Amino acid sequence: MDDEFTICIVGLGLMGGSLALALKQAGWARHIVGVSRSRTTLAAARDGGAIDVGTSDLAEGIAAADVVVLATPVRTILQLLPEVGHHAPAGALILDLGSSKTQICEVMADLPDNLEPVGGHPMCGKEVAGFAAADASLFQRRPFVLCPLPRTAPAALRLADSLARATGAHPVVLTPGEHDRAVAAISHLPYTVAVALVNTVGATGNPLAWSLASSGFRDTSRVAGSDVDMMLDTLLTNREAVLTWIEAFAAQLDGLRDALATGDEPALRAQLTAARAKRVQVGKTIG
Amino acid sequence: MDDEFTICIVGLGLMGGSLALALKQAGWARHIVGVSRSRTTLAAARDGGAIDVGTSDLAEGIAAADVVVLATPVRTILQLLPEVGHHAPAGALILDLGSSKTQICEVMADLPDNLEPVGGHPMCGKEVAGFAAADASLFQRRPFVLCPLPRTAPAALRLADSLARATGAHPVVLTPGEHDRAVAAISHLPYTVAVALVNTVGATGNPLAWSLASSGFRDTSRVAGSDVDMMLDTLLTNREAVLTWIEAFAAQLDGLRDALATGDEPALRAQLTAARAKRVQVGKTIG
Repeated sequence: MDDEFTICIVGLGLMGGSLALALKQAGWARHIVGVSRSRTTLAAARDGGAIDVGTSDLAEGIAAADVVVLATPVRTILQLLPEVGHHAPAGALILDLGSSKTQICEVMADLPDNLEPVGGHPMCGKEVAGFAAADASLFQRRPFVLCPLPRTAPAALRLADSLARATGAHPVVLTPGEHDRAVAAISHLPYTVAVALVNTVGATGNPLAWSLASSGFRDTSRVAGSDVDMMLDTLLTNREAVLTWIEAFAAQLDGLRDALATGDEPALRAQLTAARAKRVQVGKTIG
Repeated sequence: MDDEFTICIVGLGLMGGSLALALKQAGWARHIVGVSRSRTTLAAARDGGAIDVGTSDLAEGIAAADVVVLATPVRTILQLLPEVGHHAPAGALILDLGSSKTQICEVMADLPDNLEPVGGHPMCGKEVAGFAAADASLFQRRPFVLCPLPRTAPAALRLADSLARATGAHPVVLTPGEHDRAVAAISHLPYTVAVALVNTVGATGNPLAWSLASSGFRDTSRVAGSDVDMMLDTLLTNREAVLTWIEAFAAQLDGLRDALATGDEPALRAQLTAARAKRVQVGKTIG
């Protein structure tokens, strides 16, 4: 652990707050500065031992930072990056935790040459938002995707790798496109499907159905409770990949519907059997 | 608790095995007979204290039963009912635990007049099957749907109610149609959606996506691991209701896709916000 760093975390919600707690617990940074618009959040983060000092002024917060981590919804990251470029000290690692990477890494490419940008995305989460849900163990044993830019110095990527490992995560280096296509499949598509599921049953206004809902509905729909601002930004900044997966999903659903409508039992059985086999297989490894 | 009964449970998988364990724990029956095609299952159920005696012969198993519970997949229940009608003693309560109720209650209507049929469906489950997964607490605090037929005597419905309460469940009396439409929404549709989701991502053969999958994918896809025979029977015997819900779901998914494709942020936000509000609301009550 290198404890000489000053790190500034911008955004102290579930992800930023959990990162602050994890790095504090690991003793990774000498000094953790938190930036939030909310005085209440800053006070809670200080009281919770997540940050050493807090401010609502971005320029002030990052002025002395060796590492700046942007932990807000994706479009806020896109808006903040030019200001970060203006105020971050020379040599600083600029890392983010946003849920899509292509647009962020494109904007990172325009940062001043004396900064060291790396896109980041820890593959974990909860359907609850805010510092109150922050948890030092959130990243443990989870993949932490890192997307270095062509300009990123090897030492800066090593520093990002060290930060990820300090949280208990295991770093995975990917291109922004690789990340966005894969995460559209295993995160953005399930979220979209869960939203459609809840709105389908919700549209009926049938209280009987809700009264009978059990663990199956609870789990299948859980991520529909995710933070709307975060997910809206995520979907809108990863639109092409998400739309491609929605089309593929709709084709699979059509196949199930057709087999059921025509009573084609062998076809229906084959689809259910394939899903069960795959789910049992991957269920052993999904964290 | 009335401990004078002999009960015969036909099928000792997750549901039948859990029922036997729960009734044994509650001391509800004097004698529990288990019927299974599998000698291994019968031995496990006896060794596990779930049943007093076991047999693979249905006629023998139900010959002295005050209560017969059919706990197999739905189409097996449909096949067994005429044989049950032939061998069950006069006055016996004939209850089932099948996941759809319309077809079962139709066949129950043709049972001999001296039997007392009641359709049943405890609203609980796991994505694992077999007696090894049986759990005496499976039914606790869950709805246990009962569908009496017009011919069912009040005393027989009271006995079914008593059985349900003995497992820790709370009985809910519904018509078969009410049950099947509601359960298509909150159980059969989520299962179908989870199957389509797993097959969508599985069809790509992209190991990167699976390696990044987190709790969101895990939970959204969990029920796709359900027992195929049980779910195949369930979907095929509740076809109209399931197809209606699949159409409604597809329309909701189209709405999300259109808003995303056209970048209609207010429409997209409205759909995500409605789903989150509903999910947070119902999340407080789903068991």
